[in-house]
Amino acid sequence: MDLEMLQPLVRPAETKIVLLVVDGLGGLPVEKGGATELEAAATPHLDRLAAAGICGLQQPVAAGITPGSGPGHLALFGYDPLTYQVGRGVLSALGIGFDLTERDIAARGNFCTVDGDGRVTDRRAGRISTPRNSELCEKLRRISLAGVDVFVETVKEHRFLLVLRGDGLGEGITDTDPQSTGRRPLDPEPAGEADRKTATTVRRFLAEARNILADHHPANMVLLRGFSRKPRWPSMPDVYGLRAAAIAVYPMYRGVARLVGMESLPNGESVLDEFDTLKEHWHHYDFFYVHVKGTDSAGEDGDARRKQEYIEAVDRHLPRLLDLRPDVIVVTGDHSTPSRMRAHSWHPVPVLLWSEYCRPDAVPAFGERHCVTGGLGPRLPGRDLMPLAMAHALRLEKFGA
Amino acid sequence: MDLEMLQPLVRPAETKIVLLVVDGLGGLPVEKGGATELEAAATPHLDRLAAAGICGLQQPVAAGITPGSGPGHLALFGYDPLTYQVGRGVLSALGIGFDLTERDIAARGNFCTVDGDGRVTDRRAGRISTPRNSELCEKLRRISLAGVDVFVETVKEHRFLLVLRGDGLGEGITDTDPQSTGRRPLDPEPAGEADRKTATTVRRFLAEARNILADHHPANMVLLRGFSRKPRWPSMPDVYGLRAAAIAVYPMYRGVARLVGMESLPNGESVLDEFDTLKEHWHHYDFFYVHVKGTDSAGEDGDARRKQEYIEAVDRHLPRLLDLRPDVIVVTGDHSTPSRMRAHSWHPVPVLLWSEYCRPDAVPAFGERHCVTGGLGPRLPGRDLMPLAMAHALRLEKFGA
Repeated sequence: MDLEMLQPLVRPAETKIVLLVVDGLGGLPVEKGGATELEAAATPHLDRLAAAGICGLQQPVAAGITPGSGPGHLALFGYDPLTYQVGRGVLSALGIGFDLTERDIAARGNFCTVDGDGRVTDRRAGRISTPRNSELCEKLRRISLAGVDVFVETVKEHRFLLVLRGDGLGEGITDTDPQSTGRRPLDPEPAGEADRKTATTVRRFLAEARNILADHHPANMVLLRGFSRKPRWPSMPDVYGLRAAAIAVYPMYRGVARLVGMESLPNGESVLDEFDTLKEHWHHYDFFYVHVKGTDSAGEDGDARRKQEYIEAVDRHLPRLLDLRPDVIVVTGDHSTPSRMRAHSWHPVPVLLWSEYCRPDAVPAFGERHCVTGGLGPRLPGRDLMPLAMAHALRLEKFGA
Repeated sequence: MDLEMLQPLVRPAETKIVLLVVDGLGGLPVEKGGATELEAAATPHLDRLAAAGICGLQQPVAAGITPGSGPGHLALFGYDPLTYQVGRGVLSALGIGFDLTERDIAARGNFCTVDGDGRVTDRRAGRISTPRNSELCEKLRRISLAGVDVFVETVKEHRFLLVLRGDGLGEGITDTDPQSTGRRPLDPEPAGEADRKTATTVRRFLAEARNILADHHPANMVLLRGFSRKPRWPSMPDVYGLRAAAIAVYPMYRGVARLVGMESLPNGESVLDEFDTLKEHWHHYDFFYVHVKGTDSAGEDGDARRKQEYIEAVDRHLPRLLDLRPDVIVVTGDHSTPSRMRAHSWHPVPVLLWSEYCRPDAVPAFGERHCVTGGLGPRLPGRDLMPLAMAHALRLEKFGA
C-alpha cells in the first residue's frame, strides 16, 4: 500500500517497534548442499523468536534485482525503492551530517590511482587511511570555481563528498567513475540544458583536482558519481506517527535514516554498544532502526566464518534488546550478501516478525530454508514489512467501514 | 520490474540461458486424488535439476486468468502481458514470416463450414489439409478491393492469414468468428471513426469470399479474428543485451519470439531435432527459447497418457541440453493444459530454475505438489522469470548505491 493511502489509517499507540537490520543477512550454502552462514550459526534467541513469530523471505526491490544499501533500506522503511530513488551523493552527504540546501548538488567521490596514461589502476587508491583522506580533502578545498561554492568533505578511507552550491545547477550529469580499471575517468555529460552548468563546473573541478593530486600517488585522481539533489519525501514521523530513531555505525545508514526523518543517535561501534544506545533512548522513541554492519562486510570479503560469527554475536546480545520488551521485533537484512559471491545479491532475505499478535507458522528456527515455508511467504515485498509491523503494534485503523 | 527500469541494470557477460517451454506443462490429477501428468511422468533429469535448483509455480497473466499462447509466452520473455497486448492476426503473420508494414492490418482466418442457412457447422472446416488450404487461398487472392492491397496466405490446415494494406486502416474492428457453431459469422464492427474504412473493406472481402467458396464445402466460408497492427516494442536484444534465438516448430511460437526481437532458427519437428538445433547454434547466441508443443496438443485432446509420454521424451533427451552446460536453465510452460479439462487453464505452471547461484529449497522432484513449497513460491508472476534468469546468469548490476 502506498504511503499516502497508509497515512490516514495510522492511529496513536504506546507500543514500540524495533527493526533490527543485519546487513547482508541472507546467504547461499557455503559448501554445495550445505548450510548457509545463517543456518550454520548458533542462534538460540533468534530461533526462539522465529518459532514464536512469523517468518518468510523478503524481496527488497523486485525479482532478480540486487539492491544497493539505499534501496534495500528504503524498502524496509516502507518506501518503494522504485518510486523513492536517491543518488549516492545525497546519501554520502546525509551520512556525514552535511546539511544539504536546495541549491546543492552532491556527489560521492573516491580517491583513485591513475597511471602515466591517465588510466585508472585502482578505483579506491589502495583504500588510503581516513587521516590521509583528510589531508587531501584539505588541498582540494582550495579549488575555487566562479559562481559556485565548493565543499570537499572526508567520509572514510578513500571516500569523500563533493558538494557544489550555487544557482542554476541541475543534477542530471553522468558519473566520471568508469566502474572498472584500465579506463580513463569519464567526462561528465549533462542530460539536458538545465544540467550544462553543473557539467562545466565539474569538468573544471576535475582539471584542478588532477593537478593538485598529481604528486600524491596512490591517491592521484578522483572519481565522482551519483550527482544528486536532496529529495523531498514524506517523513516516517509524518507517515507513521512514530518518533523514529536510527542506531547505526556507518554514515550511509545514518544518512538514509535521516532522509526519511529519523533521528540518528550517537553510539559506539559494536553490536553491544548499539544495544546499549537502544536501552539508553528507549523511552524517547516509538520506533528504532538498529543496523549491524559486520555481516555484510564479512560476506563481501568472502569470509563465511566471520559472517557466521557476527550473526552469533547479534544473537548473543539479543537478550539486551528483548529485556526492553518491545511490542514488535522485526529482524532481517537490507539484502543478501552470500560470502560465496563476495557481493550483494538478488536472493530474498530471511525475515522474522515477532509480536504478541503474530499468527504463528510452522517455522522452527531462523534460516533460509526454513523461511521458505513461513507465513510471510518466500517473496514478501520488502516494503510490506512496515505496514505489518505497524499492524502488529496495533497502530493502524481498519480500512473502510 | 518494468523493462525500462531493468534495461539500465543489464551488464555484459559470457553466460548462456536456456528457457525450455513445455507447452501446457501444468496439469490436474488425472484421477481424483492421483498424480498429474507431470507427477506421473518418469523425469529423472528434471527431478535432479529441480532438487539442485529452485522451484515454484508461475502465474503467466494474473490470478484466475487462463493465458492464450501469446500472453503466456510474452510473460515468460519478461513482457507484462497486460501491458504488451498483441492481436492474433499479427501473431499469424509473424509465424509464417510475413513482413508486416506500418500500413497493414492483419487478421487470423479460419476456413469454416456453413449450412444452407449460413450458420457455422464446423469452425475449422474439418481441418482441411494444408495443400487444400493453399488452393483456396489462391482463389481468395483474386479478390480486388479499391484502394487496398489484399494478401491471403496459407498458415496450416484450416488456418490462413489475411492482410489488408492501405492508408487510413484502423485496427479496431470486431471478430467475425462467432466462437461457436449454430450461429452465423458476425459482421465486423468498427470501434471508432478511424476503423470505419477497415470494417467496410472487410465486409466487402467477406461477401466476395462467400461467393468464391460457395462450392468448396466443407471450406465454404471464412471466419476472421484478431484484427491488429504490428506493435512497436522494445526488443529482447535491446532490453537484456542478449543475442536471443527461438527454436520452435509451430508458426505461432516463432512469431511471438520474432515480435520481441528473437531470431527464429530453422529446425526439424521433434524434441530431438530441437535439441540438435540448439547444439548447432550454441555459440552464436546467449539466450535460447526452446518450445515443445506435443504436451499441449495431448492435453487439449484429453490424452493424459500421451501428455505424460511427451514430458518423458523431453526428459529423456534433456542430457543433450545439459551437455552444453548452460549457466541458467528455466523449465516451465506458457500455461497449464490439464488433460482432464482438454483446454488451457488458469492453474499456475510448474517452474524450475537451475544455476550455480540458486539458493536451494527443499523441493525433491519436479511436479505440481512439490513446486507449491518451492523457493519461487506458488504464484510467481511469470514475467519475473526473465529478471531472475538474468540475475542467476550474473547479467544484472546492483540497483542503486
